Amino acid sequence: MPHIEVNNDFPGIRGLMAFRPETAEPLSALAEVLLRDNEGLSRAERELIASRVSYLNDCFYCHNSHGELACVYLDGDRDLVDQVRKDYQHAAISGKLKALLTIAGKVQQSGLAVQPEDIALARREGATDKDIHDTVLIAAAFCLFNRYVDGLAATTPTDLSTYPARARQVLERGYGSHIYSSAQPVR
Amino acid sequence: MPHIEVNNDFPGIRGLMAFRPETAEPLSALAEVLLRDNEGLSRAERELIASRVSYLNDCFYCHNSHGELACVYLDGDRDLVDQVRKDYQHAAISGKLKALLTIAGKVQQSGLAVQPEDIALARREGATDKDIHDTVLIAAAFCLFNRYVDGLAATTPTDLSTYPARARQVLERGYGSHIYSSAQPVR
Repeated sequence: MPHIEVNNDFPGIRGLMAFRPETAEPLSALAEVLLRDNEGLSRAERELIASRVSYLNDCFYCHNSHGELACVYLDGDRDLVDQVRKDYQHAAISGKLKALLTIAGKVQQSGLAVQPEDIALARREGATDKDIHDTVLIAAAFCLFNRYVDGLAATTPTDLSTYPARARQVLERGYGSHIYSSAQPVR
Repeated sequence: MPHIEVNNDFPGIRGLMAFRPETAEPLSALAEVLLRDNEGLSRAERELIASRVSYLNDCFYCHNSHGELACVYLDGDRDLVDQVRKDYQHAAISGKLKALLTIAGKVQQSGLAVQPEDIALARREGATDKDIHDTVLIAAAFCLFNRYVDGLAATTPTDLSTYPARARQVLERGYGSHIYSSAQPVR
């Protein structure tokens, strides 16, 4: 049960967003740009970074919901998503994504943990300034989203079989206001 | 020097925002709602929470710039701002704000650290659901902003005498797009 009375049945962050639409609007707009932009980093890579950071923050709802999105983009390769979350250095992903996941993991600890050599390695692997910027901001944003969800004890579906339907909804319609304002929320 | 080539002279987060206006827009809109709303929590209380969380995250730019805003709202009482940052339990502030700062400090560590008794104490001290919501989201948002600034090593003015001019600018014009798009940035 959430720490506050949200007066709606939306799961996870969506229940908090419906409680306070004034902050929901910029939060969903931020997710839309960071996770649905397809230039430089692919949508799969963006969701993998989000899922990995949420896993490090021990946020069940976020690492599973964004892991599900990554899985959809990767044609259902759930093993790859799991490995990126838990042991990305040995996953079948590019050297560039590995270097960016290292930066994301440091941002999860503290912005001050990122060192020039982490950036230099990402550049050697082909990362652009925009890729590095978006990686740092995705990691920082999930340090917000994870704390928002768990800090208010948002209602979190524990049955993982319910996550694919939500992932499909985001796939089709993005992170716009429908996620917290539709009359019939997808649970 | 920032880790990426931002191609502008804006200090702190504003240089990053000018580099990527697509994400700057929702980020500045979020700050505007969370820090300039004056219902429930006052603007001074919101900036004090922001400054305290940024201090815990060791983000020099954010804890000083938002501390400066709090100072302006508190008629120049810099000692109070400093005490809230470093030892709020003994500061001359309300029991309600102390309880909310305790919640904010837990969110800074992890959303999962917030306990029902922390929420119950805040309620006993008069906090509403909206106050609790906004406290958690301000704390979570500064876990983003601090990581964004330091994770990309944004240019941070170390001379504290330059901060009051920026504080006055925000006081007069808010956190809108002028903070990263005006032709003549206030340094």
